[in-house]
Amino acid sequence: MQKLNVAILGATGAVGQRFIQLLEEHPWFQVAEVIGSSRSAGRPYGEAAHWVLDDSPPARISDMTVGALDDRIESPLVFSALPKEAARLRELELAAAGHVVCTNASANRMLDDVPLLLPEVNAEHIGLIDVQRARRGWSSGALVANSNCTTMPVVMALKPLLKYGIRRLHLVSEQAVSGAGYPGVSSMDMIDNIIPYVPGDEDKMESESRKMLGHLDGDRIVTLDCAVSATCTRVPVLDGHLVNVSLELDERPTLSDIIDDWESYQAPAPVPDLPSAPDFPLQYLQQIDRPQPRRDRQAGAGMMTSIGRLRDCPALGHKFAALSHNTVRGAAGCSILNAELMTVMGYIEGFAVTLRQQMHLRASAEV
Amino acid sequence: MQKLNVAILGATGAVGQRFIQLLEEHPWFQVAEVIGSSRSAGRPYGEAAHWVLDDSPPARISDMTVGALDDRIESPLVFSALPKEAARLRELELAAAGHVVCTNASANRMLDDVPLLLPEVNAEHIGLIDVQRARRGWSSGALVANSNCTTMPVVMALKPLLKYGIRRLHLVSEQAVSGAGYPGVSSMDMIDNIIPYVPGDEDKMESESRKMLGHLDGDRIVTLDCAVSATCTRVPVLDGHLVNVSLELDERPTLSDIIDDWESYQAPAPVPDLPSAPDFPLQYLQQIDRPQPRRDRQAGAGMMTSIGRLRDCPALGHKFAALSHNTVRGAAGCSILNAELMTVMGYIEGFAVTLRQQMHLRASAEV
Amino acid sequence: MQKLNVAILGATGAVGQRFIQLLEEHPWFQVAEVIGSSRSAGRPYGEAAHWVLDDSPPARISDMTVGALDDRIESPLVFSALPKEAARLRELELAAAGHVVCTNASANRMLDDVPLLLPEVNAEHIGLIDVQRARRGWSSGALVANSNCTTMPVVMALKPLLKYGIRRLHLVSEQAVSGAGYPGVSSMDMIDNIIPYVPGDEDKMESESRKMLGHLDGDRIVTLDCAVSATCTRVPVLDGHLVNVSLELDERPTLSDIIDDWESYQAPAPVPDLPSAPDFPLQYLQQIDRPQPRRDRQAGAGMMTSIGRLRDCPALGHKFAALSHNTVRGAAGCSILNAELMTVMGYIEGFAVTLRQQMHLRASAEV
Amino acid sequence: MQKLNVAILGATGAVGQRFIQLLEEHPWFQVAEVIGSSRSAGRPYGEAAHWVLDDSPPARISDMTVGALDDRIESPLVFSALPKEAARLRELELAAAGHVVCTNASANRMLDDVPLLLPEVNAEHIGLIDVQRARRGWSSGALVANSNCTTMPVVMALKPLLKYGIRRLHLVSEQAVSGAGYPGVSSMDMIDNIIPYVPGDEDKMESESRKMLGHLDGDRIVTLDCAVSATCTRVPVLDGHLVNVSLELDERPTLSDIIDDWESYQAPAPVPDLPSAPDFPLQYLQQIDRPQPRRDRQAGAGMMTSIGRLRDCPALGHKFAALSHNTVRGAAGCSILNAELMTVMGYIEGFAVTLRQQMHLRASAEV
Repeated sequence: MQKLNVAILGATGAVGQRFIQLLEEHPWFQVAEVIGSSRSAGRPYGEAAHWVLDDSPPARISDMTVGALDDRIESPLVFSALPKEAARLRELELAAAGHVVCTNASANRMLDDVPLLLPEVNAEHIGLIDVQRARRGWSSGALVANSNCTTMPVVMALKPLLKYGIRRLHLVSEQAVSGAGYPGVSSMDMIDNIIPYVPGDEDKMESESRKMLGHLDGDRIVTLDCAVSATCTRVPVLDGHLVNVSLELDERPTLSDIIDDWESYQAPAPVPDLPSAPDFPLQYLQQIDRPQPRRDRQAGAGMMTSIGRLRDCPALGHKFAALSHNTVRGAAGCSILNAELMTVMGYIEGFAVTLRQQMHLRASAEV
Repeated sequence: MQKLNVAILGATGAVGQRFIQLLEEHPWFQVAEVIGSSRSAGRPYGEAAHWVLDDSPPARISDMTVGALDDRIESPLVFSALPKEAARLRELELAAAGHVVCTNASANRMLDDVPLLLPEVNAEHIGLIDVQRARRGWSSGALVANSNCTTMPVVMALKPLLKYGIRRLHLVSEQAVSGAGYPGVSSMDMIDNIIPYVPGDEDKMESESRKMLGHLDGDRIVTLDCAVSATCTRVPVLDGHLVNVSLELDERPTLSDIIDDWESYQAPAPVPDLPSAPDFPLQYLQQIDRPQPRRDRQAGAGMMTSIGRLRDCPALGHKFAALSHNTVRGAAGCSILNAELMTVMGYIEGFAVTLRQQMHLRASAEV
Repeated sequence: MQKLNVAILGATGAVGQRFIQLLEEHPWFQVAEVIGSSRSAGRPYGEAAHWVLDDSPPARISDMTVGALDDRIESPLVFSALPKEAARLRELELAAAGHVVCTNASANRMLDDVPLLLPEVNAEHIGLIDVQRARRGWSSGALVANSNCTTMPVVMALKPLLKYGIRRLHLVSEQAVSGAGYPGVSSMDMIDNIIPYVPGDEDKMESESRKMLGHLDGDRIVTLDCAVSATCTRVPVLDGHLVNVSLELDERPTLSDIIDDWESYQAPAPVPDLPSAPDFPLQYLQQIDRPQPRRDRQAGAGMMTSIGRLRDCPALGHKFAALSHNTVRGAAGCSILNAELMTVMGYIEGFAVTLRQQMHLRASAEV
Repeated sequence: MQKLNVAILGATGAVGQRFIQLLEEHPWFQVAEVIGSSRSAGRPYGEAAHWVLDDSPPARISDMTVGALDDRIESPLVFSALPKEAARLRELELAAAGHVVCTNASANRMLDDVPLLLPEVNAEHIGLIDVQRARRGWSSGALVANSNCTTMPVVMALKPLLKYGIRRLHLVSEQAVSGAGYPGVSSMDMIDNIIPYVPGDEDKMESESRKMLGHLDGDRIVTLDCAVSATCTRVPVLDGHLVNVSLELDERPTLSDIIDDWESYQAPAPVPDLPSAPDFPLQYLQQIDRPQPRRDRQAGAGMMTSIGRLRDCPALGHKFAALSHNTVRGAAGCSILNAELMTVMGYIEGFAVTLRQQMHLRASAEV
């Protein structure tokens, strides 16, 4: 099978590197273009990028020449790990020019016609692409975003509980340093210390969670009607954001009802068949001191959300802890899963048919 | 002035060491007896104790012979840093035998007639000593406890807000490893990791906070009527517990009202004159990313509580972060301050008069 | 193929857990018995063991009942992760009783007739088993040790340089905390700190390195004639020991000669064909700031040694840094590789023939 | 007494902040000017500087307006914490304009006529100021440097051993992150990791140590004739550089001779009387696992060097570990001590006489 060429914007940064790492063995996509800042453009990737993940960049990628941000892109599929300001216009330009853009940047997340897609949670939001194309006059192009990395484990854990009516939500995160990119947080701030503030993330958690848990009503997302309070803190952990979640529900399910909801949760077809989807989106850990970032972030190759410590909350009703890998599930991995869903749902011109024929993949009406 | 002899129970442990360090230059008290486990008893302190604080133990203390727990104690004043089970009976025995015992152990904290004393917050709870003596038939003896180390910054920050009526309280702590003693938390659990659970502390925070913020009514403490939810997590920080506090009040003060309340808060006389009392019990930090454990735990020689990030909470009304040094303010330092208050209030037989004559200290009716 | 049953002594400890993890998918061996301390014996493994590695223990192992140390062992092959004193007699008893014991414990490492085996370095030392059996009157039993975890990367890096004559060796290690087991090093000693001393390891490095790099002469190992100075320090790293090596050679090879020696180094047959052998035992990293524990310890699934920073040493001639994973390459992984070599060399009665027939493995005279 | 006004160049950086902190209560000097980069110039210090030390900057300094690097300086004494390239010409210009410049920057350290001053080690190198003034035609101006922060504990420990003849020196450092300034080392490089390379420091240690331990012969420093090999590594420690030192001596003193040499070492007059001089420049720690960065860096208010683990080295003869606080003893504190020495030796025009009259300080011929 001929793999689909993809371009990575912001390829030399920490999330860009994670895209490269996760795509190295991808069955459908292959990295064909790596785009960086003006400082990197024109140099071999292996030289321009200060590789911060384990080991070294794949040799094939190291030898690629980094392209500039305003270079013409050839690949039909584009993953964006651009900084916010650089992302804002460029992502829209590329979508207008016919590319399917799956972005991890925050710039365009809250646009009315841009879905904030998390396939296991709101695959049906993909319908917003049709609205987007109609409204903007785009034919093959599209722009799909994923949420910030801290909101991810929260909405994943809340999805199966939506049926009980979520009235209030109180979130306190303990976030890994990789969420700030590289070099990001200084070691002088993180040795023997925590920082009780992460710029911008509290607002994002409060708004993005409500959009992601909302429903598509005609041509717009109706956000979840729920009071959300987020406090974001930074801790000396490399990867893995943990969120302490407390919530008030309209109904009063038992603790074991909720654990059952989590353990039996399965995303609608075709999501479970996508190559980057974990076997189960959620796992509930019985040990009283879990989830822990270092020990649980790799669950499901970094794509699973781990939940633990469900118990009564004297102030709001229930509380628990949720964790996922912030640069896999919460960033590059989610963008890739979004692109896989776009592919099988036929939003990538030409490629979906080929793929479906060969993969016998379903893309049923369940979504 | 002749200083008062004190004994330290559990002197070789991490909190015991902090007692020794803080008492080294104390103007009223001097360490005369160091009591340890059977493993340590009979050996010179410098050899029996694995000193975990900075530098080395004071030479005078290093040369002392460690006594056994059931040895007869000579000192009128006893500080206890015993493990819970060892503390339960021994502290009561010593009080019955005429000693004033100021304990940091949790065993007897919730007894009805034992005050959970934090001088800046509830100095009037000292009146429970009279109840205790009457009920138990003790003459010169007494037992006074301080709370667990995580509750301390919370009640300190809430005291000035009591007037607004605290209806609900939601607490998420990020606690330093020294709270678990030595060796305590394994480095294999703390490198690149956090632990979302601290055994026992959630219950303590929920019950002790309500007792400390309660009021003395005749011969008993009426606990604060307030729903308290505590989540306790462990982070790779040496000293300094930070608590993310959200609360619902009956009234709706503005943010600047609250900051004024904190900045103008002063403990009642004679607390501010006690040798271990900080100039101000509270400070509000304007920087958006403070308090931080490493940078703020030493405020007021470790006895001040630092507060920051006061803002609206969409779920409960208000939220902020509070921090204090867990082994100084939250343990040994608080026990010492309690003993100082006991002294000037005349609860240490013989010594108070001498002291007041010499220090011209007030012990007015304000308390 | 019928896999060979193995028993793990000290199965609940940190290295015991690593044995379980590495053997979970092993093509030849399967864990049949897990042996623990008296505290663990009789309980299900999943309950007795505080699992400190990522994720959770394999379900099959969790359900096993932990055996006691003096229980009769059924498995022909035994891996020992016992504490030193527990290991001393028990390992010899088991070998005398006919078991092949591959140990990670230090107790019997320096016995004259016990090989300190590192297959890529000194596979021919396996001949000492014949001496051992003859001398001790053992038939099927044997005792093979691997060295301490810090010596491993050093001897691996030095093996290809032996031909130049190693006259003096100066080693300064920066060791991970997992080398001390669990709970091992307190987090109160490792936050914002290093410890310039690791009990016992300096002596081990100085003696074990000379034995491992020695040659088998008839019935004994002639140790390498070389002055070795080791300094061992502990750093806040989870896994991966880095050693700063300086050495004086009789000859004066160029830096590129040495790099060529490393890059072309291959262990003698049949070592490269063993299931746990990495594709290459050594890699030389060109980046000036490598090897780094977190980024390089997983090379070759934790079985490869990474070397970097080769340069002139004004004091001794040459210097470089070497790193390997201390609980994989330096402990459990090496014991397993030793057992694999024992297997194909015919030292495990009955099993070798079956294996060779099925695997078409060579066990040539090269060793 | 009227204090002497001082200017701090590079005042907003990490070392600049340490200058401000250490000078806050200085008996002779007071900060009158704070000079920063073009980004900071014109803004209040409290706003321009991201304070990275504990607590907050002193209120008086916070309110000062930051000056630009090419502004005219009024203060007779200038402390430089400039980056290397910015320092090179500006320090010489200021000295030429009559200022006494005490620099922590590396740019001019190895100039022939610039003393690399460490008062307890080579106070007599101050004589190079006369050479400097004569050669360059400066009258009141002067330029004095201190060494890099890693060399400091080494030369301090070696000074009392010079009499035995130091033939070879082998150094392996484990350096704190504050040595790289702020933000300096990324937390993504320091969590669960060490870096076996510190750019530039190995060369500096090898050359600066020989200059510092050299002697002034007429108008030049004769460097110590000794082979020095330095390996510099970075560890996750906030402050405090530890160096593992091995050395070959011409003579063979016993271990207790050497410890006596250290314990009895005292700097020549007037150094011990200077306000920033510790009571003893060196301490030898008997505990086998010391010195440790976190526990020993504050010895002597950060100005003392702690030594431990003296023992035989099979490769070179002797070895030990030495530690000092890298931004106090190894940077700002040393520059201040140098300025104090310059003052009492009469190199600061006008001020020395006043000072001596008032302080009855000796400035004898011993130096």
